[in-house]
Amino acid sequence: MSDSSLERLSLNTATVRPLDRVGGPDLIAMVDACARAGVPWIAPWRQQFAEVPISIAARAVRDAGMRVSSLCRGGFFPAATAAERQSRVDDNLRAVDEAAELGTDVLVLVCGGVVGKDLPGSRQMVEDGIAAVLPHAAERGVRLGIEPLHPMFAADRSVIATLGEADALTARLDSPWVGAVVDVYHVWWDPEVDAAIEATRGHLLGFHVNDWIVPLLDVLAGRGMMGDGVIDLKRLRRAVEAVGYDGPIEVEIFNQSLWERPMDEVIALMAERYRKTVLEG
Amino acid sequence: MSDSSLERLSLNTATVRPLDRVGGPDLIAMVDACARAGVPWIAPWRQQFAEVPISIAARAVRDAGMRVSSLCRGGFFPAATAAERQSRVDDNLRAVDEAAELGTDVLVLVCGGVVGKDLPGSRQMVEDGIAAVLPHAAERGVRLGIEPLHPMFAADRSVIATLGEADALTARLDSPWVGAVVDVYHVWWDPEVDAAIEATRGHLLGFHVNDWIVPLLDVLAGRGMMGDGVIDLKRLRRAVEAVGYDGPIEVEIFNQSLWERPMDEVIALMAERYRKTVLEG
Repeated sequence: MSDSSLERLSLNTATVRPLDRVGGPDLIAMVDACARAGVPWIAPWRQQFAEVPISIAARAVRDAGMRVSSLCRGGFFPAATAAERQSRVDDNLRAVDEAAELGTDVLVLVCGGVVGKDLPGSRQMVEDGIAAVLPHAAERGVRLGIEPLHPMFAADRSVIATLGEADALTARLDSPWVGAVVDVYHVWWDPEVDAAIEATRGHLLGFHVNDWIVPLLDVLAGRGMMGDGVIDLKRLRRAVEAVGYDGPIEVEIFNQSLWERPMDEVIALMAERYRKTVLEG
Repeated sequence: MSDSSLERLSLNTATVRPLDRVGGPDLIAMVDACARAGVPWIAPWRQQFAEVPISIAARAVRDAGMRVSSLCRGGFFPAATAAERQSRVDDNLRAVDEAAELGTDVLVLVCGGVVGKDLPGSRQMVEDGIAAVLPHAAERGVRLGIEPLHPMFAADRSVIATLGEADALTARLDSPWVGAVVDVYHVWWDPEVDAAIEATRGHLLGFHVNDWIVPLLDVLAGRGMMGDGVIDLKRLRRAVEAVGYDGPIEVEIFNQSLWERPMDEVIALMAERYRKTVLEG
């Protein structure tokens, strides 16, 4: 099953099962399927620990000779009251512990949306929230990965909507325990993406691939398999490698039609498309 | 019917009838409805001239004592072959003539999407296309308004996805006959929007209002009535006024539930929300 072309490939588990689906393969089954397919990395979501306790999941990954590329997700810092903002910070502290226990050093942050029509104020809440989590992250050896989301999610999921903004936030927070995560779906359109990738040098904590299908059929569940859309994936991979990124490459696709297919089939397709459309040749 | 608070208000006609609907009020009926409601400006779409010839429409607007704020739309420059790109340019030359005949000096450009996964190349095609139309635009006294669309439309409608990019394009084209159009729906999320608005000084050709509803129910037809979403409309209006824009303010809303309501009701609601959420007080 060992295949060196797949040595950086990671399955983000949302690709094979929607987060809110009751039933379907659990995290252990996903680890087994990756091992069968020669996919050496996996990136779970915290919701999955309700089915499989973290310690069991961590052992299953180790026993399979695999590694965890990141944990999804912390974030969602903006909230209307100070008490609610504190409870968001508390949840992020727990997420840091979960990442450490799982054996990954990257917690992905989806920063949260707009509160009270106040975009600048909401952005400040994100910065304050991350700053409040950083000491604990440093203590547990977990880096916080700010993932800018596509601007169509700015209202309800992430006021951090460009990689340039994630870079600026990282620079202001000024800690080795914070950095940026690049997902091609969120940044491909940006005329400033090359400069923004250049600015991630030394603090790029993850690289996610998928594709943008035309027409966009669904805001949340219409993301595409690599090769099915308009994104020049090789160009973006080369750009992150040019700033020194050589870590795992996660495939994270929210797509209704993929969720309806058998897990092993989706993982095989993912590996094939990864070789063909992300790697050279 | 005269109401000075509405003196800058313009109805973009897509607000009261979807472009692809067969039947429903025609352009003359829309002009009449605006006149009844004290809305002094209107912005039609070219498709409407299939029902109402331009000369008749122009006369109806004049007879009602109204004015045309802009014509929608030119653009869609990127295409796979040189012949197809030329036919897009030719269509834009006709659109310039139509704008002139209708009696407006602004043609809105929706620049077009990505061809062949080549985003930089597609952007170059936009620049080349506008440059090819500019001499005729100057001759007819029509200004070309580059409207950056929200990045969720970058693949299929506009590779010009930020106001900063529209500004840069305008600067490179370096002509009094080209400028930018700001639609709050497309730019509200942008961390660089203030600087980009500042850079439109002297070439801001239009300002469109509506709102971003949470959750976004439909990519195309889920735009909101002013006040129903998260955008700080007054802040953006003040920002465009601070760079000297004192022209018409168009309401352009693609929303299925509004399309199902009687036109006069939608126009009355639009005027009320305009006073309350866009103007002061």
